[in-house]
Amino acid sequence: MRVLVTGCFDIIHPGHIHLLKEAAKLGDVYVIVARDSTIERYKNEKPIIPEQQRLEVIKSIKFVTNAVLGSEKNGDHGYLQFALTLKPDIIFLGPNQRTSVNYLKKGLEEFHSEHVQVRRLNKIYDKFELKSSSAIKERIRTQSKKKK
Amino acid sequence: MRVLVTGCFDIIHPGHIHLLKEAAKLGDVYVIVARDSTIERYKNEKPIIPEQQRLEVIKSIKFVTNAVLGSEKNGDHGYLQFALTLKPDIIFLGPNQRTSVNYLKKGLEEFHSEHVQVRRLNKIYDKFELKSSSAIKERIRTQSKKKK
Repeated sequence: MRVLVTGCFDIIHPGHIHLLKEAAKLGDVYVIVARDSTIERYKNEKPIIPEQQRLEVIKSIKFVTNAVLGSEKNGDHGYLQFALTLKPDIIFLGPNQRTSVNYLKKGLEEFHSEHVQVRRLNKIYDKFELKSSSAIKERIRTQSKKKK
Repeated sequence: MRVLVTGCFDIIHPGHIHLLKEAAKLGDVYVIVARDSTIERYKNEKPIIPEQQRLEVIKSIKFVTNAVLGSEKNGDHGYLQFALTLKPDIIFLGPNQRTSVNYLKKGLEEFHSEHVQVRRLNKIYDKFELKSSSAIKERIRTQSKKKK
């Protein structure tokens, strides 16, 4: 089974690793790392780490078979078109990812790819204190302010 | 061969991964992740990411056989005493690490462990823009200021 995970992976944290580990239980994990331009468009904020560097880090994670940069094409249509070139059997979403399972399923129908399963890891992995890239960035900013 | 790498690994970047990859060319890589208290003592600044979380991330890197938290004992003497419990054949230093090869060799003599080799990866891996945890933190602070 080929399992597809997509994300920004701006600053790697145990939540990412947990997601990839769970994905690896289902099959070989292929990752699409979101482009800088895509992140800026969706989050209205540049990622901290440039795309090639984010790709390099994600490729080094044990549970990842291979990772590639995403497409710069607009919208979920563009995303799915690109995702399908990686021939996934399962698209595996993280608990924080905005895309809805049903929305993706409808998109897959449009591409005549109903055979692709869409699943979501529902529970946020909260074993560790800094559970998201945003929380890590916020900690860095707060620590910086304290020093002044 | 058992190869020992030690570091803070506060925010993982391609420089860390390159170091671990090079270490893995020499043998099985065991990592000591510096304790929060040790980092605070040496750098006069807390790490951003708590030790258990830093450990979790480093354990998930492809080139790492196993990783453990360091000892909280003071000084290089304490470090070496703990490092030797992991029975390394090689202690592998990163290009930025302050400890000198000769200083470590003298310490190893004191512990009658001259058989342990000490090597350093000399060249900083500069293929990517944000080459250190400090550079990443600085980028986050700058980006934060710009937004205000």
